[in-house]
Amino acid sequence: MPSPTTFLYKSDPVRGRLWAEVFRERAPEIDFRIWPDTGDPERVRFLAAWEPPANLATGFPQLQVLFSSGAGVDQFDFSALPAHLPVVRMVEPGIVRGMVEYTCHAVLDLHRDMPQYRRQQQRGEWRALPVRTADECRVGVLGLGSLGQAALAQLAGLGFACAGWSRSRHAIAGVQCFAGEDELPAFLARTDILVCLLPLTDATRGFLNAGLFARLPHGAQLVHVGRGPQLVDTDLLAALATGQIAEAVLDVTDPEPLPPSHAFWRHPNVRLTPHIASMTQPRTAAAAVIDNLRRFAAGEPMEGLVDRTRGY
Amino acid sequence: MPSPTTFLYKSDPVRGRLWAEVFRERAPEIDFRIWPDTGDPERVRFLAAWEPPANLATGFPQLQVLFSSGAGVDQFDFSALPAHLPVVRMVEPGIVRGMVEYTCHAVLDLHRDMPQYRRQQQRGEWRALPVRTADECRVGVLGLGSLGQAALAQLAGLGFACAGWSRSRHAIAGVQCFAGEDELPAFLARTDILVCLLPLTDATRGFLNAGLFARLPHGAQLVHVGRGPQLVDTDLLAALATGQIAEAVLDVTDPEPLPPSHAFWRHPNVRLTPHIASMTQPRTAAAAVIDNLRRFAAGEPMEGLVDRTRGY
Repeated sequence: MPSPTTFLYKSDPVRGRLWAEVFRERAPEIDFRIWPDTGDPERVRFLAAWEPPANLATGFPQLQVLFSSGAGVDQFDFSALPAHLPVVRMVEPGIVRGMVEYTCHAVLDLHRDMPQYRRQQQRGEWRALPVRTADECRVGVLGLGSLGQAALAQLAGLGFACAGWSRSRHAIAGVQCFAGEDELPAFLARTDILVCLLPLTDATRGFLNAGLFARLPHGAQLVHVGRGPQLVDTDLLAALATGQIAEAVLDVTDPEPLPPSHAFWRHPNVRLTPHIASMTQPRTAAAAVIDNLRRFAAGEPMEGLVDRTRGY
Repeated sequence: MPSPTTFLYKSDPVRGRLWAEVFRERAPEIDFRIWPDTGDPERVRFLAAWEPPANLATGFPQLQVLFSSGAGVDQFDFSALPAHLPVVRMVEPGIVRGMVEYTCHAVLDLHRDMPQYRRQQQRGEWRALPVRTADECRVGVLGLGSLGQAALAQLAGLGFACAGWSRSRHAIAGVQCFAGEDELPAFLARTDILVCLLPLTDATRGFLNAGLFARLPHGAQLVHVGRGPQLVDTDLLAALATGQIAEAVLDVTDPEPLPPSHAFWRHPNVRLTPHIASMTQPRTAAAAVIDNLRRFAAGEPMEGLVDRTRGY
């Protein structure tokens, strides 16, 4: 009898036990283990991790695929990973649904002037603000991966005038698509509510800066659900001070948690959530990984396979 | 040449001018007038009003239809209206879209623990709360008219476990439908977030009371977008005090505006908006009324025709 293949899980152990249940049901032939219970390291062919072990290359010589346990792979130090090792992002319905919920909520919150209504309530002020219909509100999503596309589908269903921008050319029904640096200014000029869903790469670090904010219409609003280091905090504070940006919803910061002294905490036009927009749901994530293991075994392309030259 | 038919508009005059434009474009044969410019009262066949003139029966003897300029007709004193006069609610896409936006925002706000996250931000606290997926969150809508059905369609699209309750039996794909007093307890027992979209009638006055709240699961949440007099304020405050109701979003109150001393203004678990969930959009409202005039002329049933025995 051949010795079983080990799938090693190195992330939150409570969630890991839910992964284990799904593996037991749907892939009982695999020896699923939760870090630090690695078993025989020579048998570890697959690893799911948020932070891979330091000795990855030498400690697990038979490793065939590295799965990220979250949507991003920016936490990985690619230079420390064997060049041949396939790296796979988490693409699973749970994380998509959570992001759709958060972005729809944030866009509706801004579109319907809820920050102002909350301030009016604090002042005891009963006053209706002018109504703008959704088709008069231009939403623009930066990043057209699975999360950006799912968010746009729901926002278009709510009637918003939707556009998207990505490095590469996309075509999405009902969404005006812009591509590349050349088309970024036109995308920004038509965007009242900007949603950032970009992956963190060298090209997107500091992307949300004064130059970008200046190209938006005056009084535009920002929803940042990408990664903290994409935002230049001081540039956002300056844009809020002039009214160039009217309101910002931030789910990600740099660092996380945000230090207690940071100006975002108490800024009246900033709403801050602690990186909760979307979380991998253990059961659907484990099922998605098992589907990818079957594709890998069959020699088919895995969903979410990272292109290391792009970094996502 | 026959003398032209007059359509008299008695509501906000700024919005009335937008109605006038639509009538000029789409029904130029009609003499559209904005109150108090009635012209010859004998020629007024149609009236759109929020508050009809006091001398309706005697002042406008040729009146054939009364249109409400808003979604409800509870502001009308039916006993003062001629018994034969057809009364028509406003059913138009603008008011439906606005209500869908508001209810989706409110339900997502509660589902994603945004009230708690806003309180955490005020305290400078960075802490992720346990995540519940939409399919684990049971939303229940009271009232299955055009607004309730449209809200449920969008909420079901977001993945919520949806149910609806109405006096009469309905069948809606993807929504568990309950009907009548007998099935109300079962509907309430399975509802984590209760959305009230009932019309105001003698039967729904005081409907949201201690007895109803007690039938919800402990810690349920309320979104009230019906009419102010449906809610017993003191019963809601008592339910909030025990935690039976965890959070409430109220767009309607009794009276409106809510007096400055009312406890809702400063209650940490109440979010208050000044009856802005949905407003008739003048252009689409005028177009919907013109469509109804064509139906009336053709002897077809008008959309939104009120059954006076039900009151809606």
